[in-house]
Amino acid sequence: MSLSFQQNFKLGILGGGQLGRMLIQSGIDFNIPFAILDPDRQAPCSALAEFHTGKLTDFDTVMKFGAACDIITIEIENVNTAALKELVKQGKKVFPQPDVIELIQDKRTQKIFYRDSGIPTAEFVLTENAADVRRHASFLPAVNKLGREGYDGRGVQILRSEKELANAFDAPGLLEKLIDFEKEISVIVARNEQGEVKTFPVVEMVFHPVQNLVEYLFAPAELPTAIAKEADTIARTIIDSLKMVGLLAVEMFVTKDGKVLVNEIAPRPHNSGHQTIEANITSQYEQHLRAILNLPLGDTSMVIPGAMVNLLGEPGHEGVAQYQGFEEVARVSGVHVHLYGKRFTKPFRKMGHVTIVDYDLARLREKTMFVKETLKVIAS
Amino acid sequence: MSLSFQQNFKLGILGGGQLGRMLIQSGIDFNIPFAILDPDRQAPCSALAEFHTGKLTDFDTVMKFGAACDIITIEIENVNTAALKELVKQGKKVFPQPDVIELIQDKRTQKIFYRDSGIPTAEFVLTENAADVRRHASFLPAVNKLGREGYDGRGVQILRSEKELANAFDAPGLLEKLIDFEKEISVIVARNEQGEVKTFPVVEMVFHPVQNLVEYLFAPAELPTAIAKEADTIARTIIDSLKMVGLLAVEMFVTKDGKVLVNEIAPRPHNSGHQTIEANITSQYEQHLRAILNLPLGDTSMVIPGAMVNLLGEPGHEGVAQYQGFEEVARVSGVHVHLYGKRFTKPFRKMGHVTIVDYDLARLREKTMFVKETLKVIAS
Repeated sequence: MSLSFQQNFKLGILGGGQLGRMLIQSGIDFNIPFAILDPDRQAPCSALAEFHTGKLTDFDTVMKFGAACDIITIEIENVNTAALKELVKQGKKVFPQPDVIELIQDKRTQKIFYRDSGIPTAEFVLTENAADVRRHASFLPAVNKLGREGYDGRGVQILRSEKELANAFDAPGLLEKLIDFEKEISVIVARNEQGEVKTFPVVEMVFHPVQNLVEYLFAPAELPTAIAKEADTIARTIIDSLKMVGLLAVEMFVTKDGKVLVNEIAPRPHNSGHQTIEANITSQYEQHLRAILNLPLGDTSMVIPGAMVNLLGEPGHEGVAQYQGFEEVARVSGVHVHLYGKRFTKPFRKMGHVTIVDYDLARLREKTMFVKETLKVIAS
Repeated sequence: MSLSFQQNFKLGILGGGQLGRMLIQSGIDFNIPFAILDPDRQAPCSALAEFHTGKLTDFDTVMKFGAACDIITIEIENVNTAALKELVKQGKKVFPQPDVIELIQDKRTQKIFYRDSGIPTAEFVLTENAADVRRHASFLPAVNKLGREGYDGRGVQILRSEKELANAFDAPGLLEKLIDFEKEISVIVARNEQGEVKTFPVVEMVFHPVQNLVEYLFAPAELPTAIAKEADTIARTIIDSLKMVGLLAVEMFVTKDGKVLVNEIAPRPHNSGHQTIEANITSQYEQHLRAILNLPLGDTSMVIPGAMVNLLGEPGHEGVAQYQGFEEVARVSGVHVHLYGKRFTKPFRKMGHVTIVDYDLARLREKTMFVKETLKVIAS
């Protein structure tokens, strides 16, 4: 069978950030022509594909962009789903499906979905505003989340005591019991139109203590087999329940008493899968493309253990980015630096990531710490 | 140290074919802005970087293109070296150096260089024209090579008997003793400005019986350690003798009596290194970029055994390319298809390649044969 995407075809991506950039990089192998929509004309994808500047949340902009594409996908959830639904009606393929994006856009509907589908997750109450949050003092310590538009650590805060209730978000959101977890893990799962499902091996994430961003991760996660299996099953159950086509990242807590609870899901390539480019047979990016093009899913096996360090803008630095220590880390065997092509840095901005691979897990950890301490994004 | 190539920098590539395309794909990780010069406005690189249409052999065209770049490299040898020399005088960095490109452009000067540097190579005589070739009947069976502009199997023919002397090339070239070889192998070696040198493990190539193109290859080569070591030493000796900066592919014969003889060299990424993208810690493309940017060279170790199959246009097909069997091969674990984005196919045109990785060598060979038999480039 010859495949349609190799000639006279266009794959549209809503969002032109680093995830789109790595999708394009992967799609070069399959000769996929991409079109990108992003509000920032200097977005990481801008020089690598047909690029359109426009708002992802604007109905007409998304309609016009999508009309010129054959398949439309996303690399960020905050997009106009009404336009995507209309494009589906007009015969376009949109993966992940607009109703899945909509469900995930709101952390409240996400939580209701877990509860209704029997997916284990932390206990929660929905809250409508700050006053409503303050009525739930007995629920503390808790995590207060905004329903919509939280991203990369924004819209999420911990409320430990009644005193901290003063900071409560004053918009529809939720309170979630603070989980005293042992580990944070992630499983990335893919599903194509035929319903084929494959999961990547579980990875273990370490978050930045303040910024609520993945600071670094290790694959494979050090976990009892039963717990890894449980996490894998949960990821499969979620994507099957949603009948979603594409890639879904499932972030989970492992509690101190060995329970697995779903924290959040993202229907796209994810920060917790960057290391698959070097460490697995198929990368998460190729897997997403395979899923939405209805190709057979790729083998997700790990070839070599990997770690990933997010390269965040150094606090106190704002301006044209410079990469201090680049040469020092490039000298270390198994270190792969990925820069996202962002001209300007600011504190904690995701400027790139570094994958480290090594057969020896102790050496892998050592190299990871060296990268974390050596490579810095400063302003020139 | 912050590095200059991450802002306000341009890397120019002479040639916009598949090797350039994979250099760009690799360079995305280091955030390298590329400019490409190629005569074909639909060249594989055309949609992926700043693209200029023009002749690589034209002095003024190369001068104008190079003047706007900081470093200039090549992905094909047939370029105007006078312009490159002038660019060096004007302070540009040109890697590989123009005099190395010039030496390699002519198979006659290449052979003289081997002889003068004590590099083992097949016995040869220089020939000026067809009549001159015919005077060397006693040298048969031999390979008759044109001095200049042979590429991808063109400009090379075997003359077995006096009768075949009628086909002799009528231009400056050479006759080389036909080697009754056991294997054809390749070593890719890199050198940066500091003189650091690293080789990739030896690979074993199988050539198309008629087209003189690499049909498929295996890495690692099955060779006695002493012979692999000899091949490695030869590659290092050549790049050191040339003081070349960049990547050099050294193709060699292993004779039935266990000698290693240099066949040809190419001062750029090479068909015999494609599998390094998936199978080695550092790919040949990243290594070339590291070498010419004067970064520390990357670890060349193999992570997993790999094979590579060239995807050539099917004989009898000419027109818009279609990839028959794409889905079938995509289903096989460890198969990575790389399409070069060429719209039109013709018989034996290099349209892409497939890398296959597997820890089990028998399975690797089996999968390689399956890919060779299944994936075909036909015209729609």
